[in-house]
Amino acid sequence: MLIPAQLTPSERILMGPGPSTVPSRILRALGAPTLGHLDPQYLGYMDETCAMLREVFQTRNPLTFPVSGTGMAGMETLATNLLEAGDEAIICINGAFGLRMRDIVQRCGATVHALEVPWGEIFSTDMIARAVADHPRAKLLTIVHAETSTGAHQPLETISEIVHAAGMLLVVDAVTSLGGHELKVDEWQIDAIFSGTQKCLSCPPGLSPVSFSPRAVQVMESRKTKVQSWYLDVSMLRAYYTTGTGRAYHHTAPINMVYALREALRIVLEEGLDARIERHRLMHLRLRAGLEAMGLAYIPTHSLHTLNCVRVPAGIDEAAVRRRLLQEYSIEIGAGLGVFAGQAWRIGLMGHAATPRNIDLLLAALRHCLT
Amino acid sequence: MLIPAQLTPSERILMGPGPSTVPSRILRALGAPTLGHLDPQYLGYMDETCAMLREVFQTRNPLTFPVSGTGMAGMETLATNLLEAGDEAIICINGAFGLRMRDIVQRCGATVHALEVPWGEIFSTDMIARAVADHPRAKLLTIVHAETSTGAHQPLETISEIVHAAGMLLVVDAVTSLGGHELKVDEWQIDAIFSGTQKCLSCPPGLSPVSFSPRAVQVMESRKTKVQSWYLDVSMLRAYYTTGTGRAYHHTAPINMVYALREALRIVLEEGLDARIERHRLMHLRLRAGLEAMGLAYIPTHSLHTLNCVRVPAGIDEAAVRRRLLQEYSIEIGAGLGVFAGQAWRIGLMGHAATPRNIDLLLAALRHCLT
Repeated sequence: MLIPAQLTPSERILMGPGPSTVPSRILRALGAPTLGHLDPQYLGYMDETCAMLREVFQTRNPLTFPVSGTGMAGMETLATNLLEAGDEAIICINGAFGLRMRDIVQRCGATVHALEVPWGEIFSTDMIARAVADHPRAKLLTIVHAETSTGAHQPLETISEIVHAAGMLLVVDAVTSLGGHELKVDEWQIDAIFSGTQKCLSCPPGLSPVSFSPRAVQVMESRKTKVQSWYLDVSMLRAYYTTGTGRAYHHTAPINMVYALREALRIVLEEGLDARIERHRLMHLRLRAGLEAMGLAYIPTHSLHTLNCVRVPAGIDEAAVRRRLLQEYSIEIGAGLGVFAGQAWRIGLMGHAATPRNIDLLLAALRHCLT
Repeated sequence: MLIPAQLTPSERILMGPGPSTVPSRILRALGAPTLGHLDPQYLGYMDETCAMLREVFQTRNPLTFPVSGTGMAGMETLATNLLEAGDEAIICINGAFGLRMRDIVQRCGATVHALEVPWGEIFSTDMIARAVADHPRAKLLTIVHAETSTGAHQPLETISEIVHAAGMLLVVDAVTSLGGHELKVDEWQIDAIFSGTQKCLSCPPGLSPVSFSPRAVQVMESRKTKVQSWYLDVSMLRAYYTTGTGRAYHHTAPINMVYALREALRIVLEEGLDARIERHRLMHLRLRAGLEAMGLAYIPTHSLHTLNCVRVPAGIDEAAVRRRLLQEYSIEIGAGLGVFAGQAWRIGLMGHAATPRNIDLLLAALRHCLT
């Protein structure tokens, strides 16, 4: 066969739903020499990565590590390890990622009690309280902190008490909030959480950071059956990722991706988590003012700072606008997903991409494409 | 917290069971600017990657792509997609990776008929024929082409006819052979196969190339139940990885890892697959002559070229030798695994690491450490 030419990817400004633009420091770390997965040097880097993940998750959970797959592998890790066939679960659904969690939980053989509100809306504390009262046998409740499909921002502070009072675990999807929104795993008493590297951490996709509370660990330790996934079985992953009685080889970790995540977390901590979250808030306000001045309306009532979902004006070919942004400006923004397909744009302000320079350029480019 | 220092991994010579040394061309490709997973440029790179994978697997199977996880994710992809609860499977076990396949197949709810020989040995055609006759209801037979735990090289040429005559699928683990040993997926009529990137392709770990024959696709299309893993569900992955009626987003692909695999495959095709396989054979002979001259004995009767498993001489502290090789020479070789823990060294000759320079250095270093 004809061997394809050398790779020359464009230097995009990534302002879609993820991946976000990766800073060169992280790309350089990614390309550092590969070590063996049991090399003491590598194990040191891995431990440091897990320690920094704890800092960014704001947790002391020992069981905090990156799953060797993209964000959805993290979602599946939580579901398959916490649930067994015959268990019940309350799944809060207000967008594509709640729906996905339902699908995954059903594949675990668990019974789903779906709590639904229209796409773009969020759940009130009362609704959660009622759902928990209605399904007292549920083992856990899952909720999406940052719905990447709608841009809705779900407050979590008041939920955990209700869920815990009913003896359930609180399971959270934080793919688009970790490192960009306030997210306090210990203070908010979240029992299991997963995220992705390619959003507000501005690392390439390929890993899914997860964290489990001691309460969640207890639930996993009392399982009666094996986890249906070998690759994602936390009882075995623990022996590799947590120090103590020696490292047990499970699978070959994606070494260079861990280098990149380590560098991404160093950058987060250098900036300071609070400063970074505040930057995301300010950048959201800047973008929002510009978009609304152009007559564009936000879809969710409670918008994320990190993902801005706006309605496409009537009569506009949304795909053509995205194509022009990509071709003329090398800027990527996202299309609508699911219910909002063809009706929305999703503009990410995540990590390294959330800067005044990018926002002002995007606003100028959008104005150009819309007139 | 104190932010860890910048990453400075040593430039190891990786001659263990994987990862193997990654050439700088691949590390540079890995660190190229990240594109979006639906960017037309990225989709082009992905299609080229799949086309080159077909070339290296020596197959025309349209359904050939890299699973977004390390090698074991590929093993799990094959098992979970081809099997349903209640199915029967014949699992050939002659080392750690056959055992692992058994575990994964059992987690799919399938009944396992284990065909076992001692670690280090291989299966004769007669044994396969008898197993197939004994278990006529089995849906498939799995076998390890290159047992990374023992260094045994299993011939496959004559097996497929027996397996197909019985109406079963032939499922092959080729983690340590793809790109280093003769492996003809179409000619040998293999129905489903998985590999890893970090062995003879000399790419960092993080992806698992897989390929499914039309016969295997038919079996997956006639499933009565959903695949228990959402992340690895090929019925959905197909819509992203194979062209045709437009790309459907499933999960965010590990973009930069695909860049690296693409570059690794370009290097394989530049060298020429046959020439590369011949190089691995010659390097094995060179290493073997040197090791045997030192009095070291190979464990398997039919040794792989890519993984050389030798017995540790009596009275030698095997871990101390590996430690010295790492500290004094920055060379990694592997320990024994499972049955051979503490009794064997596993010396990889894979891809970029399989050179006269590395072999002669390792032999000199081993001589130094053993005297």
